Amino acid sequence: MNVLRVWAPNARAVAVQIGARRVAMDKEAAPQRGWWRVVDADAVPGSDYAFILDDDERPLPDPRSEYQPQGVHKASRIVDHGAFAWTDDRFVASPLAEAVIYELHIGTFTAQGTFESAIARLDHLVELGVTHVELMPVGEFPGSRGWGYDGVDLSAPHHAYGGPSGLKQLVDACHAKGLAVLLDVVYNHFGPSGNYLPRFGPYLTDRYATPWGSAVNFDGRGSDEVRRLVCDNAIGWMRDYHIDGLRLDAIHAILDVSPTHLLEQLAAETAQPAAQTGRRRVLIAENDLNDPRIVTPAARGGYGLDAQWCEDFHHCLHTVLTGERSGYYSDFGTLGQLARSLRQAFVYDGRYSAYRDRRHGRSTRGLSGHNFVACLQNHDQVGNRARGDRSSHLMSLGRLRIGAALVILGPFVPMLFQGEEWGASTPFQYFTDHQEPELARAVSEGRKKEFAPFGWNPADIPDPQDPATFERSKLDWSELAEEPHKSILQWYRELIALRSRVAELRDGIMERVEVSYDEQERWLAMTRSPISVAFNLDTSAREVPVGDTVSRRLLMASDQRIAVGAGSVQLPPDSVAIIGPTSDKGVLRSAGTKGTKKIDRRTE
Amino acid sequence: MNVLRVWAPNARAVAVQIGARRVAMDKEAAPQRGWWRVVDADAVPGSDYAFILDDDERPLPDPRSEYQPQGVHKASRIVDHGAFAWTDDRFVASPLAEAVIYELHIGTFTAQGTFESAIARLDHLVELGVTHVELMPVGEFPGSRGWGYDGVDLSAPHHAYGGPSGLKQLVDACHAKGLAVLLDVVYNHFGPSGNYLPRFGPYLTDRYATPWGSAVNFDGRGSDEVRRLVCDNAIGWMRDYHIDGLRLDAIHAILDVSPTHLLEQLAAETAQPAAQTGRRRVLIAENDLNDPRIVTPAARGGYGLDAQWCEDFHHCLHTVLTGERSGYYSDFGTLGQLARSLRQAFVYDGRYSAYRDRRHGRSTRGLSGHNFVACLQNHDQVGNRARGDRSSHLMSLGRLRIGAALVILGPFVPMLFQGEEWGASTPFQYFTDHQEPELARAVSEGRKKEFAPFGWNPADIPDPQDPATFERSKLDWSELAEEPHKSILQWYRELIALRSRVAELRDGIMERVEVSYDEQERWLAMTRSPISVAFNLDTSAREVPVGDTVSRRLLMASDQRIAVGAGSVQLPPDSVAIIGPTSDKGVLRSAGTKGTKKIDRRTE
Repeated sequence: MNVLRVWAPNARAVAVQIGARRVAMDKEAAPQRGWWRVVDADAVPGSDYAFILDDDERPLPDPRSEYQPQGVHKASRIVDHGAFAWTDDRFVASPLAEAVIYELHIGTFTAQGTFESAIARLDHLVELGVTHVELMPVGEFPGSRGWGYDGVDLSAPHHAYGGPSGLKQLVDACHAKGLAVLLDVVYNHFGPSGNYLPRFGPYLTDRYATPWGSAVNFDGRGSDEVRRLVCDNAIGWMRDYHIDGLRLDAIHAILDVSPTHLLEQLAAETAQPAAQTGRRRVLIAENDLNDPRIVTPAARGGYGLDAQWCEDFHHCLHTVLTGERSGYYSDFGTLGQLARSLRQAFVYDGRYSAYRDRRHGRSTRGLSGHNFVACLQNHDQVGNRARGDRSSHLMSLGRLRIGAALVILGPFVPMLFQGEEWGASTPFQYFTDHQEPELARAVSEGRKKEFAPFGWNPADIPDPQDPATFERSKLDWSELAEEPHKSILQWYRELIALRSRVAELRDGIMERVEVSYDEQERWLAMTRSPISVAFNLDTSAREVPVGDTVSRRLLMASDQRIAVGAGSVQLPPDSVAIIGPTSDKGVLRSAGTKGTKKIDRRTE
Repeated sequence: MNVLRVWAPNARAVAVQIGARRVAMDKEAAPQRGWWRVVDADAVPGSDYAFILDDDERPLPDPRSEYQPQGVHKASRIVDHGAFAWTDDRFVASPLAEAVIYELHIGTFTAQGTFESAIARLDHLVELGVTHVELMPVGEFPGSRGWGYDGVDLSAPHHAYGGPSGLKQLVDACHAKGLAVLLDVVYNHFGPSGNYLPRFGPYLTDRYATPWGSAVNFDGRGSDEVRRLVCDNAIGWMRDYHIDGLRLDAIHAILDVSPTHLLEQLAAETAQPAAQTGRRRVLIAENDLNDPRIVTPAARGGYGLDAQWCEDFHHCLHTVLTGERSGYYSDFGTLGQLARSLRQAFVYDGRYSAYRDRRHGRSTRGLSGHNFVACLQNHDQVGNRARGDRSSHLMSLGRLRIGAALVILGPFVPMLFQGEEWGASTPFQYFTDHQEPELARAVSEGRKKEFAPFGWNPADIPDPQDPATFERSKLDWSELAEEPHKSILQWYRELIALRSRVAELRDGIMERVEVSYDEQERWLAMTRSPISVAFNLDTSAREVPVGDTVSRRLLMASDQRIAVGAGSVQLPPDSVAIIGPTSDKGVLRSAGTKGTKKIDRRTE
């Protein structure tokens, strides 16, 4: 068709630069509002183009750019989605009920940091038992290094990762190996550099404040097209890249008081069966408000998303295992809270939160465990620490195994963060690659200031702009051959295999979770019949009641000293036992032998 | 108990001035957060008191004051709610399905402008057929004259109206005559003068912008107590003043993204049967977003309010009858829209609104007509005009009768605005009584500026601060003895009597409303079997099809020339006919004879 279009409702004139030529565009007739168009023979796949508003000097990238081969400030490139030879006709993604999600960051997952290089590591994920790969945001962000949450070209796979064709290759390869692909998308703000969207139209609003400044305009004047940008982005990932679902970043910062919240619209539009699979794509939200409405079906007044990250579960688990209590962890720390979270996801279900100084959350009654994604760690909980420490840097290997067992055998959809499965020694630090010196300096200084109140020496805070910070955050796959990493990996594999083997572990019925614990003696036992997980955090051995030990036996043990008695299990400090049917073929008693101390973070 | 309490979470010290004495208060122990208390022998009903924060010079009124006998800046007075001798044990309010609401403003409803003086006019309302009196806000606002939306002491009935005992007398008198009482309450902002609440605690937030500046903090730090202030206010009106329901002002400006919206909490808390009636009190919202969630039951994900004002219906009716198209009226003006509104309340049910430059609203499917309050005019639509013109000043008496017929015989809960029922010649203008010279000047000048873009000469805009503007807005009850006012009143009475007589007019089933119209010929016929309302807005007589004219006959006619034919009715210009069962005992053919021109607004 050779058509280029752009929405620029306030422009008096719009032109497009294609190669060296500048071509005037025409305003489209009603019912289109504010759209401009041109048909040009040079507007073909592979051509670079940029828009000129009101005869301004500087051509601007397309707000709906599908490729920014030279970064956020330069021309956009036309992509031909028909050119890729997909081979995934027969792929069917696992449902969330069966899912084990693996969050990864393309830039640090491999040494090369590209979509293509990630393909070589997919077998590792398959052997681990992962069903869904979740990519941290790939939309073009400033520079070549970044987490991706500063993206400005939502629909353009990052050039440093390999651009559109690289992403397609990775998705096709995942599908070939039976792995579904989820993509993290950021609809709550645009990055601080390269965001030309406000030049084109009312993409932002001052009516609401967010942590990043102005909110995205989803309910004010002109918001129909802002919503379309987002919905079309979601649909585009699914249609053009065969993405199986999205993880929606920080949706509490998507402020929309219109009668149909953007997320409800998004869920409805992406619920249309995709032609290539006939299956519904999943939507998973990150939300800070403990709001069940997000995953409640639209027919019952909800937004109809599939799942949301369960922050409370993470915070319970993290505080119990590390003893940390600073910041938002101050609201957590008891075994009673962990027990409550295992049965109802949200600890804060309308209770008063001292950290927030208000009641927080709402009951999850009527929801499934599969409406919640649970993890021991994720990019935020690791990377937002001053030095990017993983759980394995913060706790003994016994406790790491406890955490893994509760995540993987609990009622929620488990998620791992890249390298977690072997207790990677590499950190995951905060890194950026801003090109503007002032912004770069502000980010470097801001990071130091952020941690000063917690007693950190500024010199000990890795500089986000330093390429070494990025390099240091890359996984070191050679560790996999070493202890204790090998044993940790084996532990994770066995847990996932057990979850896969025992249907009751995948029923998502939170009401069926039984938990007993002793806050003083520091032990807890969770039973999801026929499986029990019992752990001891005390410095003394503990006798922990686990119910039936006649028709059940020890399936997995983090420590060789663990012994099963009549209706109970003897647990040494920092150990965990998994009890199950005598008929179960799995057995692993030695995982704990190869290492007990926490893993040192790689020296820098 | 002689206890005084106040929430001041950030204060280091709080004292209370009672009479000439200053008494230190104690901080309450956990689980109370930020509450202070004192027990003092002088803290008895009738005593005046004010709080001193952090040894500040100036004593401040109680944020939960129940009486401000000397206005918003002075001391609060302790009220003994047990002292009033209620006589309304046997009163039961009509359900909304049976309701005819009458909106009135205490200050201008009578010459004296008090709760007590209003009592003498209740018989007029009973004879008219009104079931619910709706009082514009009475919470203490600055000065002695005002609409009430600048209130700062939400729980203190205005001293100029007669204070707490005056309001109780009025409510008791209403109940004695079978009239329920609704109260307009403002929870979206506080007035610009006398708002000392931010001195006490985090009542406001900058995270959201409203037309009045900072929003009320319903979901941030400390918001639990802000929510309690509002919920306790609502409960207090019902418990202490026997108020039968609330009209909630501009709830689109109540910004709350927490999982339980303030309004859902309010609906749940006020749904508790009140001891004195055993009946649920009603909540009616003003909302600008055409959002069905507001009146959807909580079990289906809604807020569970009873009804909301239907702006779209008003705008349809007003534009069709007046031809006005400026401002938000630009989105309306066709008979087709009026027809749609009669069948589904919201014209904008997700359609694009040019005025708002975005899609607006959502479908009302599944809701009842009784979830919507409909009017030809209300305090806003009259008072927000430059000179406070009523519908009767803007249209012929024939059109006024058309408007009344559609409001009263339509599927919604009808509401009249004081004096509408006789086409009062008095305007209802915008008046204030700010005491601070700068604020007073800003309000006077602001009003002139507001209307300058519409071509108004500033000299023609009534000065809100001028007492004459207030005086001029008072109803002149002597008009009731004169034509055309007598005939208009008779028309309204007959319509209400017909609604009361015919059960089908009170079924609220929007799907049962049949409408035919001709946009060119300017006629419309609405049938809610067995009643039809047909009107003609053309300058020529029109033959309007109305269906069955064998078992039905002309019940009411606005013009003597109206004649019924076979399946149709002959309507002269600006006339309306009401057709119904031959068995119906009502008949009124002469209402149109006493006046046809619009009513002149009283000269000023």
